[in-house]
Amino acid sequence: MFADIKQYFESQLPKVEAALDESMNVLKRDWPYDSKAETVHESMRYSLMAGGKRIRPILTLAACEMMGGTEEMAMPTALAAEMIHTMSLIHDDLPCMDNDDLRRGKPTNHKVFGDDIAVLAGDGLLSYSFEYIARYTKGVAPERVLDVIARCGKCVGALGLVGGQVVDIQSEGKKDVTIETLQWIHEHKTAALLEFCVVGGGILGGANEEQIQRLSKFAMNIGLSFQIIDDILDVTQDSATLGKTAGKDLLVDKATYPKLMGLEKSKERAEALIAEAKDQLKPWGDKAAPLMALADFITARKN
Amino acid sequence: MFADIKQYFESQLPKVEAALDESMNVLKRDWPYDSKAETVHESMRYSLMAGGKRIRPILTLAACEMMGGTEEMAMPTALAAEMIHTMSLIHDDLPCMDNDDLRRGKPTNHKVFGDDIAVLAGDGLLSYSFEYIARYTKGVAPERVLDVIARCGKCVGALGLVGGQVVDIQSEGKKDVTIETLQWIHEHKTAALLEFCVVGGGILGGANEEQIQRLSKFAMNIGLSFQIIDDILDVTQDSATLGKTAGKDLLVDKATYPKLMGLEKSKERAEALIAEAKDQLKPWGDKAAPLMALADFITARKN
Repeated sequence: MFADIKQYFESQLPKVEAALDESMNVLKRDWPYDSKAETVHESMRYSLMAGGKRIRPILTLAACEMMGGTEEMAMPTALAAEMIHTMSLIHDDLPCMDNDDLRRGKPTNHKVFGDDIAVLAGDGLLSYSFEYIARYTKGVAPERVLDVIARCGKCVGALGLVGGQVVDIQSEGKKDVTIETLQWIHEHKTAALLEFCVVGGGILGGANEEQIQRLSKFAMNIGLSFQIIDDILDVTQDSATLGKTAGKDLLVDKATYPKLMGLEKSKERAEALIAEAKDQLKPWGDKAAPLMALADFITARKN
Repeated sequence: MFADIKQYFESQLPKVEAALDESMNVLKRDWPYDSKAETVHESMRYSLMAGGKRIRPILTLAACEMMGGTEEMAMPTALAAEMIHTMSLIHDDLPCMDNDDLRRGKPTNHKVFGDDIAVLAGDGLLSYSFEYIARYTKGVAPERVLDVIARCGKCVGALGLVGGQVVDIQSEGKKDVTIETLQWIHEHKTAALLEFCVVGGGILGGANEEQIQRLSKFAMNIGLSFQIIDDILDVTQDSATLGKTAGKDLLVDKATYPKLMGLEKSKERAEALIAEAKDQLKPWGDKAAPLMALADFITARKN
């Protein structure tokens, strides 16, 4: 049905963009007297609506629909995943972290709003993501929604992207970072949220335990592969193509897959992970076409 | 039963402390292979276990028990409220915000772990708070738990403590801050989370809509009163008594109740709010004794 990934993205992206925009409108519309919260709204909206490939929401929707669920069931969780991703970018870009001035071709949140508002906008997006799942998920048994929220918390926290970012910071500039540590960082900093999208979408669509395991393995593999390719693009592309500062990893002497195992071996590893990932989806046959195409898209992307 | 607030605190505080400690143990015990997440665990635990009056968890438990609910129903939400409070302190203390070195008589999180880890520890606590409610609440209808999570998100976000903190920052040093703006700040920065505790605890214990309205009014009043008294203590107490830097508000020329309406009038306002708050609890008779005593405690406190 959607073997052509371009067609799939063209059908999904405008829906996700419109729903993200609406999620920010809702915040203001429901409590119109609170115009004092304008600045933090603006700051949250600035980063959330700054574009991006929206891979996380699209993965969430695709997983739910592969299970036979509807878009309505998964959309709040899909948007929450993008809010969380945006929060992590805002906080990671701060001067006390990666100190990045440019993100998706635009000044980073703290360059526009200041470091203080940027910290708070991230906090606002993070809390809103959980609120959004809890408040707006329709047509799903509440036990399943609670399961999704619990998994969402784990994928952000000490055993998810926060933990991954901490170990990433601690590894910076170190000469003895192993592949095992690097993999841990990527699994937590990047793959955990992607896994949440696919597994969360699957659970909302009715996945059983065995299906959850398959979805999890699929997503962890594409997540790790996604990050290996990110490492590769950082050394092979320029800033204009990436929409962010290129060559940054080399500059801070960061452990990356290309640095630890070379460019060619890194590409092979990424491709092997994608192949293993796609194996997991065989039981779904043709219904897996969108997720299969998304997996291919991740290996083929240039930014 | 607990008209004596000292006795009430003595019975509740050790339970809350033990449960908070256990909440941090669980994070490590369930995923023991993830020793790499040690630093962020330590940083989260450092601030969460740094003492404090635990007013928020105790309010949550008291509201649930007043409704006829059990401690088990409300404890995860009670702990989540303390995690959120701790997150807000860690982020507010950052150099890019209030730049505080001292909190509860100890160095602030970023002084010990660095600004980057402090931002991430806050994020970790915030996400864990939602996870904790979703994963560990027992004996409550899942629809009610979802309602509690949605309200939790709102009380943190742009229309809660994040919004309050943003307007607080924007008002700093301004000569024309009105009482109306100051009240908005306090209602959002402080009262919203206290309201969540009381209303959340009530919902978990089975409160209906009319009861929720009463609990909300009670909590907003004691929340606003709590902050007025915080303002008063900042100018009347020393750093040793407060366990944090005293006179800080005057130093940065901050709008406070004592500054805008004088010390005496501020005290009167706080007391009037508490009296109105207690009126809301009359329908519960003797069962309201713990919440009544907590309201008195807030007006009488010295730090």
